[in-house]
Parts: sequence; structure tokens; C-alpha cells
Amino acid sequence: MARVAVIGAAGFAGALCADIVWRHPKLELTAVTARSDAGARLCDVHPRYDVPLTLAEFDADAVAASADAALVAYPHGAAAPVVAQLLERGLRVVDLSADFRLPRDAYESYYQPHEHAELLNEAVYGLTERYRDQIAGARLVANPGCYPTASILGLLPVADLADDVIVDAKSGVSGAGRAATDKTHFINVVENFSPYGVESHRHRAELEMELPVERITFTPHLLPLDQGLLASCYLQPNREIDAIELRERFDSAYADEPFIRLAGAPPGVRDVRDTNFCAIHATIEQATGRVLVFSAIDNLWKGAAGQAVQNLNLMLGMDERLGLVGGQGVAGKVAP
Amino acid sequence: MARVAVIGAAGFAGALCADIVWRHPKLELTAVTARSDAGARLCDVHPRYDVPLTLAEFDADAVAASADAALVAYPHGAAAPVVAQLLERGLRVVDLSADFRLPRDAYESYYQPHEHAELLNEAVYGLTERYRDQIAGARLVANPGCYPTASILGLLPVADLADDVIVDAKSGVSGAGRAATDKTHFINVVENFSPYGVESHRHRAELEMELPVERITFTPHLLPLDQGLLASCYLQPNREIDAIELRERFDSAYADEPFIRLAGAPPGVRDVRDTNFCAIHATIEQATGRVLVFSAIDNLWKGAAGQAVQNLNLMLGMDERLGLVGGQGVAGKVAP
Amino acid sequence: MARVAVIGAAGFAGALCADIVWRHPKLELTAVTARSDAGARLCDVHPRYDVPLTLAEFDADAVAASADAALVAYPHGAAAPVVAQLLERGLRVVDLSADFRLPRDAYESYYQPHEHAELLNEAVYGLTERYRDQIAGARLVANPGCYPTASILGLLPVADLADDVIVDAKSGVSGAGRAATDKTHFINVVENFSPYGVESHRHRAELEMELPVERITFTPHLLPLDQGLLASCYLQPNREIDAIELRERFDSAYADEPFIRLAGAPPGVRDVRDTNFCAIHATIEQATGRVLVFSAIDNLWKGAAGQAVQNLNLMLGMDERLGLVGGQGVAGKVAP
Amino acid sequence: MARVAVIGAAGFAGALCADIVWRHPKLELTAVTARSDAGARLCDVHPRYDVPLTLAEFDADAVAASADAALVAYPHGAAAPVVAQLLERGLRVVDLSADFRLPRDAYESYYQPHEHAELLNEAVYGLTERYRDQIAGARLVANPGCYPTASILGLLPVADLADDVIVDAKSGVSGAGRAATDKTHFINVVENFSPYGVESHRHRAELEMELPVERITFTPHLLPLDQGLLASCYLQPNREIDAIELRERFDSAYADEPFIRLAGAPPGVRDVRDTNFCAIHATIEQATGRVLVFSAIDNLWKGAAGQAVQNLNLMLGMDERLGLVGGQGVAGKVAP
Repeated sequence: MARVAVIGAAGFAGALCADIVWRHPKLELTAVTARSDAGARLCDVHPRYDVPLTLAEFDADAVAASADAALVAYPHGAAAPVVAQLLERGLRVVDLSADFRLPRDAYESYYQPHEHAELLNEAVYGLTERYRDQIAGARLVANPGCYPTASILGLLPVADLADDVIVDAKSGVSGAGRAATDKTHFINVVENFSPYGVESHRHRAELEMELPVERITFTPHLLPLDQGLLASCYLQPNREIDAIELRERFDSAYADEPFIRLAGAPPGVRDVRDTNFCAIHATIEQATGRVLVFSAIDNLWKGAAGQAVQNLNLMLGMDERLGLVGGQGVAGKVAP
Repeated sequence: MARVAVIGAAGFAGALCADIVWRHPKLELTAVTARSDAGARLCDVHPRYDVPLTLAEFDADAVAASADAALVAYPHGAAAPVVAQLLERGLRVVDLSADFRLPRDAYESYYQPHEHAELLNEAVYGLTERYRDQIAGARLVANPGCYPTASILGLLPVADLADDVIVDAKSGVSGAGRAATDKTHFINVVENFSPYGVESHRHRAELEMELPVERITFTPHLLPLDQGLLASCYLQPNREIDAIELRERFDSAYADEPFIRLAGAPPGVRDVRDTNFCAIHATIEQATGRVLVFSAIDNLWKGAAGQAVQNLNLMLGMDERLGLVGGQGVAGKVAP
Repeated sequence: MARVAVIGAAGFAGALCADIVWRHPKLELTAVTARSDAGARLCDVHPRYDVPLTLAEFDADAVAASADAALVAYPHGAAAPVVAQLLERGLRVVDLSADFRLPRDAYESYYQPHEHAELLNEAVYGLTERYRDQIAGARLVANPGCYPTASILGLLPVADLADDVIVDAKSGVSGAGRAATDKTHFINVVENFSPYGVESHRHRAELEMELPVERITFTPHLLPLDQGLLASCYLQPNREIDAIELRERFDSAYADEPFIRLAGAPPGVRDVRDTNFCAIHATIEQATGRVLVFSAIDNLWKGAAGQAVQNLNLMLGMDERLGLVGGQGVAGKVAP
Repeated sequence: MARVAVIGAAGFAGALCADIVWRHPKLELTAVTARSDAGARLCDVHPRYDVPLTLAEFDADAVAASADAALVAYPHGAAAPVVAQLLERGLRVVDLSADFRLPRDAYESYYQPHEHAELLNEAVYGLTERYRDQIAGARLVANPGCYPTASILGLLPVADLADDVIVDAKSGVSGAGRAATDKTHFINVVENFSPYGVESHRHRAELEMELPVERITFTPHLLPLDQGLLASCYLQPNREIDAIELRERFDSAYADEPFIRLAGAPPGVRDVRDTNFCAIHATIEQATGRVLVFSAIDNLWKGAAGQAVQNLNLMLGMDERLGLVGGQGVAGKVAP
């Protein structure tokens, strides 16, 4: 039973981190902190989550006294100093922000000057399916962005085939966070659907880092729903491939992955709502020879809190499924 | 570890029953049957639920061979014969239909001739908080309707104070079931909100049975959302009561109830989404002395599948919270 | 062709006022002002409305130079001084705020000290169907609130029969205005439904002013949709009435009203979306003798901008339907 | 004042056709027919539309006796014979189905054997902005599909630059029609978003017909909303072009078009809800040189009924804007 703190538990991703840890069979939630709402119980701020702990102001020493590991769910820039303090005090950390995902150059080009670049070297990019081994041994894991998670998982098995890819991605509003803005006002979202951040969305940096292609087109769109993200990916292979090869590529990449579902038809985001699954369907368009990949996740789960716990499980030497699935035949149910 | 079958697992409530049992720490899901979709895996029909079992045609002997208890999620009329066959074969049954909720007269007046009235005597109305003891010893529990669950729980602590009550109730669309009809067509629901079944909704019969008042006004409305039900209840007390008495009545009724949350403000249905909680807020309107009670549930959970498992837990001698909550300090987490 | 200014045209109700005037066959939109967004074209702030005029800062002299009448869509408190300046300069004004709806005592009890109480005497409450004659001769019309419009129209034909009424009302989010707050954040609204302002909602004051009953229970709820408002009204008559009398009461009140639809079944808010209609269905509940009235409007139309133009038409001596309906056989189509 | 019949006025597109004609300043709606709902008034079937005419069974002679022109809103296959009968009787027809959009080969390959191929020669594809002159003189106009309308309008100014294009398109549910199916069930749509008809959607045929490119990738997705369609289009030019050329191409194509808005930023579908506008934003992605075009329409308006009336206006020698916009300075307001 490892003791875990969640830093930034008032936001959507942080609150879900806390809820997952709270219900996790082998983790103990010992502290929740928040920049807003400190003094309130988490279950009063987010009634869907039955976590009665009180949100505290962040204090690195207090957190270190009560926890062996931390999930940090702060915005980029705010996360780095907190992560540094916790590492210094011996905690293992999964950081959900962008602060440790990228090489320094890319980070500073897409975001801002980096205040703790000394930690970048040891940070492991937390795309579990790709970096499982490094994650298991890491002190610091940088949890991927939601768009990159779906897009990279969908494209990796075929990305070597092409020089460029197009990712037309769509996300629910929880990805935009709890801040009340024009963008998140109900009236601007309901009965609406629009592209945003075309060319400029920072998650592009992670695609550039992880995908072995020269040119990436990435256009996010905002869906009028709560949780869910779909990446529709288009790739023109440099040589002809057939359905058998396509299938083999995805099977060999993912057949044994506990959180990847290779779907026989294009998935809807509702299929994976409130789950840590990434559902992927790939096909070759006959008329063009183009490879189409549709990849669906819940942006708060596999795109944030779920993958963070999946990584934390690995860092603590546990079955990565613990706390994330619990049906018969898997650890959460059978182990105890 | 008791073995459980879910009959009618292709519908919304049945599928959730199967999912809850699948993840339940002390129940084993051994069979799922369905009138439609037989031959398909449950997780292919309802991808949100990670249950890989294959839906079978119903066969009482096969079910009896593999299960000690059953959750039956058939429509009224179709449920009774199946329940009878399972009881005959020695299973304990929670029936989610209306077939065993009412006295014969009321049932036949609101529904249709009863084909298994001989079982009505032993059936226990499964409003857990009211009939916990009888449920624990029952062979057959009739799980309450969604509207009655929220309304009766909200009104019971004060119903003795008045001769009549008004229940203005609103439910999400999952309560209407999987059948594709004009009523459930997306375009008729989205950006819409309307009363329906005014005067004629059959759930009125359960309110009449359970509430000790002479006159009941009950008007359901359809909300443009998936899961969630709110009952706004109005009651003019025969004598003046004050806030202290009101609070004491609810505290004494529910303070120790694991699935009732006495809320300091009117709850939203999102507060209890995907949970088995009933959130209740009661207040006395100063200008009129009227008692207002707002009671929110997830119609698929506390209004159907969640309460069914809560009842099944009791029938099997287990902690009623098992499989329904799992946080630290409660049985699902600590017990094993 | 009368010249009309819209003050506060950046808000939801003000923008719709501008759009209706822009398309009105006998009104000319000559000025639009706004506290925010000044300098932008209205059609860029609200692309749904094809109004290319540029939003200006409010300047009473400039408005008076260009317009004969004004629709003022400011929040309460901010509206009164603007209204006073425009009246002083000879304009006729429909004010959509609460500033001139109530007697001074009621206003100051529900809102704040009144800065222009000298104008209250001549202000006419703009519930068109009730005060049509006074509106026609008025310089200043106080447009009713959205909840009172639906509720009072629904109850007036039967309000003399009872001492108290219950109004369980539900509104879409546009009623909450353009401000980005926790309450209007998409995630707090979607898949949610909750009561708010129980006992304290200020629209209660208008119900108390207009309805001849002693006790009023009024509970607003927030619907997860854009435009639409339903009031479900409950009234226990002091004497028995039958369906014939009920029908006669509504027929004699509304049979000739151009914007009231007496509906054969409970209306949904979608039935009146983007229209100025109020759809009303009344019935007597057999089991209780209680009168149930369901009244649906579009909160931005009949609940705000539509009724404001309806009133302005009357003040200017025009057919009240102009600009609000345009089908064959009505003025908007046939007149020119 | 031309007399117009709407055939198939019980469906979403047909009902809107009837409503637009009803409010049109120079058209008279003289007949509405429907395969379902005959005998009911249109305003009872679609209460949003204030059209009191009664839906009749289709009878070609009766229609011909009362109307000079018809809008036919039947499904493909059912439309052709009705169109043939009406043409025979001297009416001018806009057909909203696919029956006359395509060359025979393409039609029979994507749809079914054609029963009235003799009419294909004279049918004009009703993409107004492209075929305005032919439409003006036509007896029979084949109104384009919703996806092709948005996609082709977005791509035409640049389609000569490339050999292939990708169209990632998203539509609201009204595009799927009134039939109650699993696909249109509220629960399968809300909080969901999914691709459908990948490779197989029949609207691809219109893209192939109209766009001068060799390879087209076209993937429709279903949005959880009522009305609205966005096409995100990707095109890799064969030679480098710059922002100036891009702008000139769109300006020269569309600067004078009354229903095309060249937008400074990617449009949302809400921007054009309930309007006949197509809002287009084009940009060159710096990193790749790729041209991105985002094109938004209301699928029921510019994607169906609105464009049909736009075409009918031209066929009858009227200003094409009549009945579709009505603000100051345009024909609908000033002309009479």
C-alpha cells in the first residue's frame, strides 16, 4: 500500500486522479492540495467523486511527510517548481503538465523559459505503451497530452510508412479546464462545433517529438460534450500496403496491451467514456491507398488521470491495470 | 463468491447490472442473457462496459446450472414468467420490472392481468432504506421504479405531515430504454424539455402504495441528457414545522444510510451521475411554510441497477455497499 | 418606418433585439451600443445574427439624434439611468431589465435602492396580453422577466380560483447571460439539471405583483440547453371546476391572442424555439381536482427580445405581430 | 407571386422548405404533401414552424392544379417518379434527393437502378454559386447533398492545385432524417462522436463529380447536435502558394456571393445555425505548405432547404436572396 498525494486536485484531471487513487486497491490517498478551493472537501467541489478528504494549500514538506509518490495536476509553468520540490524530498512524481514532456528547445519554443531544465534529462515521456520499461524505473514521468496520446497511439504502427500525416482531432470541453471563459461558456459550446488552435496548438510539439515523419498537420476541434476525444488520422504510405499487413502491424504493436482495443469499426468516444481504454480502428481506403486511423479516448482518463495512474502503477512495481479496471480475471478483482 | 446471472443484459439497466456484478469484489458474473443481441458479446453491444461475456438466449435450466442468484431486467409482463422459472429452480431474484412491486389490484389497474400473482405475497418492495430487513430475508425482491425511488426517499421523512404532495419529476432519456422511437429520437430530445405521461405515468402506483398521503400529483418530464433524475417535491404541512424539526426528521431517517447524502443545497443530477447515491435537500419556504424536497439520483444506478445490486448484497448477507462504492474506509477497498 | 436603437446589444437579449429590428419590415435599426465589444460589428460578436452595424459606446445624445425609440437591454441598476436619459431626450423606451417592473418597495426589497423612482409611475408592465392598451400609450414599458412571462400567462385564467400556486420552472442557459461563470461553464451544465435560487429568485416579485393569490412557491431549475423555458404550474382550486369551465377560461382569455397557442398536449420548449409564441396546456388532474398548467416559451423571444418588439410595435401604433411572424395572411408578408 | 408546393413536407428538410416558402415575400405556399402524417397540420407535426396547412397525400394532378413549382423532399428512389409526374404537368422542380444529381453510371453505382434516366440530361446540379446561370433556366434542379455543398464550396477555389484532397466532415443529426433508428437514438448520440460511412458514404459521388482531383478521401462523422455541418479540408498544393494568392483565389470566387462569408478565423457551425450562409476560412499551414479550408453550413439550410429556395428563386427570375435573408439593405426588406 503506497501513499499518494494529488497536487492540484480541484481541477478536472486532478480530481479524477484523486478519485482513482481513492478507489485503488493498493494505493492510499493521503493528501490532496489545490490552489483554489483549499479548505473545502474534494467531494463538495466535485460531488461526482466520493472523496471526503479536505483540499489543503500546497506545502512540500507536509506532502513529503505523508506521501511516497505524487500526481501533479498543475498547469504548465506552475508544475515545474512543485515537481522539483517533491523530487528533492524523495517522492516519485507523475506530472500531468507539459513541463517535462519535451526537450528544452521545443518546450521553450512552444511554451516559455524552463525553470527546471535540469530535470528534463531524467524525465520519461509517459506514453505507457511506448515507454513502459523506462517508466517503470523512473523518478519523474511526464504524462502526455490528451491529443498526443490518442494520435500517437493511433499512428505509431504505421508512421514509418510515410513522410507526413494529418491529424484531425476533436475533444470534449473538459480538456479546456475549469476556468470559466468565453470558450467554455455553455452557449458558445452547445449546438456548436469549431476548429481552434489551428497551426498553433501546443500539443503539436509532442507529435513532432514522437512521430518519425517530416510534416504533421494537426487541427483540434471542440466538441459539444464533456469527456471524449477522437483523432482521425490520415497517412499516405510511401509504398502500397494491404489489409493483412495493416492488421499485422496493429496486432503486433497492441495485441497484448491491456488498455488498447483494436476495434472492428470506427469507435465513438462514448465507447470509452469513463474508461482508460484507447479504441483504435485502422483501414486502407481502397480508392486512394491511404491509411485511415481513428483513435478514441476519454481525454480525462487515458488522456490524463487514467494514464497517470497507469504510469504510477508501473513506477511502484504494480500491475499497471490496478485501479483502472476491476472486472473478473484482472488483478483488481482477483488479487485481493 | 456468489454466482450471479443477469437476464435482459442488452438493455440499459441490464447491461449496467452486468457491469456492476462483473466488477463486484464478491460476486461472479456467470451468465448474461438477452432477447435481442444474443450471440454478441456484451462489451460489443455496450462498449462502455468491459464485460466480455457472450449474451445467450434465456434458458432457465442453463441459468440455474450456473448461478445462485439472478438480476432480471426485462420489461413488465415479460419478467414475471422468467422470475417464476428461476425461483422454482432455487435462485434468489431481484426483478427490476414492475411485475412484483404492487398489490395485484394496483398492478392490474395500472398494467395488465398478472400471470404470476401467486408470487406477489412473498415479493418484497426493494426500496432498500425502507425495507432493508425484509429484503435481507427475501427470495424475491421487486426493485422500485426510478421515479418512485427518488420521490419516496425524498418524501418519507415528512409525508406524515400532509394530506397531499406534488412531485414534479424530471428524468434523462436512458429511463425510456433502448427502443428507437419518436420519443427517443435525438432531434426530439435535444434542445427540448417537455412533460409526458401527465396523470397517466404508471410509477404513480408506487407513490400511492408507499406514501401515506391521500392525494398525489405526479408529473414526469423528459430531460435532454443521458443519466439523471430529479424529483422536486412540494408538501404543505398540516401544522407548522421549523427548520430544526425538518433537519431532525431527515437526520434521523438517513444519517446512517450509506447511499443517502443530505445536501446543504439543492443537488444537481450530475452530482450523482454514475453513482448509487440519492442526494436530498429539504427546506421550508418561509413565505408559505411549505416543505420543498429536492431528490436526485442516477436513474440507471439508484433508480435501477445500483439499487438492484444493493438489494442483492443484502439478500446474500453481504455489506450492501459492496461493488457500489470502493473508496478507502469502506468495505470494497478495505475488506479484502 | 420608425428609427430604433438597441442599447446593450452585445448581450444575448440585446443582440436578438437588434436582429429582430434589423429584419423588421417597418423598423429601421439605426444604432447599436454595448458596454463590452464596442468597436466590433454585431455580426462578428454574434455571427448567427446578420447585422453589420458596429457596436458603439453609449452616448445619449448620439442615440437621440439617430433614433425615435430604444430597446434597452442592460442589467438591472445599469438600465435606469440610461432609460432616464433617453426619455428625457424624447425617445420611447422598452426596458428589458427589472428596473421599472415593480413598485418601489418591492424593487428595493428584491434588488437595490432605485435611482429613478420618479419614472415608476408612468412605467407600464409589458406583459402584452394583459396590458395591451396601456402599453400602446406608454412612453416607458418595463418588459417582464422570462419566468414571470410564462408563469403569469399560464396562471392568469385560473388564478382567481385559489389562494396559492406552485410554479416549478425550468430555463435554458441563455437566461443566465453572457458572463462566463462557474454556473455557465459547459461542464457544470451539460448532463446536469439542478434547482437554483430556491426562495430567493427575484422574478418571484413579479409573480407576487401580478397574481391574485396569497402564497406563491417558485422554484427555478437550470436546463442543459440554450433557449427555452417551461413553467409547470400547480393550483388547487377553492371549488371544483370541470374540463369545460377550464377550457372556456383559457379560450376566453387567449383565443384571439396572436402569440398564445392553446395546446392539446403538454408543450415542449422546442415547440416554440426561436419563436415569440407562448404554448399553454391546462388540465385538471382527476385524482386530485388540481389544475395543472404547462406554459412554454423561448426565454430570449417571448421571455425577452420578442416581447420587447411586440410591445414596441404597439407603442408605435403598428400591428404587434410585425417582425415576429411573417407567414402568409399576416401583416409581415401581406402588408407591403 | 408564384405558387409553390412542397412534396415530402413531414421530413426535416421538407418542413423547413415549407416554412421558408410560407414566410417568403414573393412565394405562396399552396400545397404540402407527405407520405406519413397526411391529414395533420404541418404546425402540429413540426410545432417550431408556424405553417397551418394540412399535409395531404401526394396527388400529381392536385399539386399541378394548385402550384407552378415544387420542392420535392423525398428520399432517393422515391423522388424520381414524383419529379417526373410534376415536370410532365408543367411544374418547375427543385429535387432535394440524390436522384438527379449524378450521371447515370455514378448514380447506379452508388445508389440503385435509375427509373427516370431520361431526365438526367436536363437536370442541373444545384450548387448555386457554381451553376447559377444554368439553374436560372432550368426546369429541374438537383439540389446538392449537405456534405458536398460545404466541401465543394470550400475546395473549388483551390482544387486545381492538387491531385488529391482529404475531407474530414462532421454533421448534426438532423441530416440523418426523422426515422427512429439505433443511429438516431438519443443515447447513442449524446456524449458521443463517431465516424460513420467511412469509404462508403454516397455523398462521395458528388465530390468526385465536381472536384477536379484524382483522389478524394471523405470521412463523415456524427456530431451530438441538431443542425450544423463542418467540413475540414486538407489539400497539398502541387506548387507553393502564399497567403496572398490564397486570399485572392477565395476573394475572386466569392467576394460578391450573397451567401458565402469569408471568415477571418475558423467558423463554428453555430455561426451559421438557422441561416443559409456558408462560412469559409482558408489558411496555409506554415510547417507543411498544406492548404486548410474549414467550411461551415447549417445542413438543413444551405445543405438542403435553404439552397433549394435559393435555386427556386433563380428559376423564377427573382433575387436569390428572397425569403432567406431579410435585413435592411437587402431585397426582402427593402424591395416591397
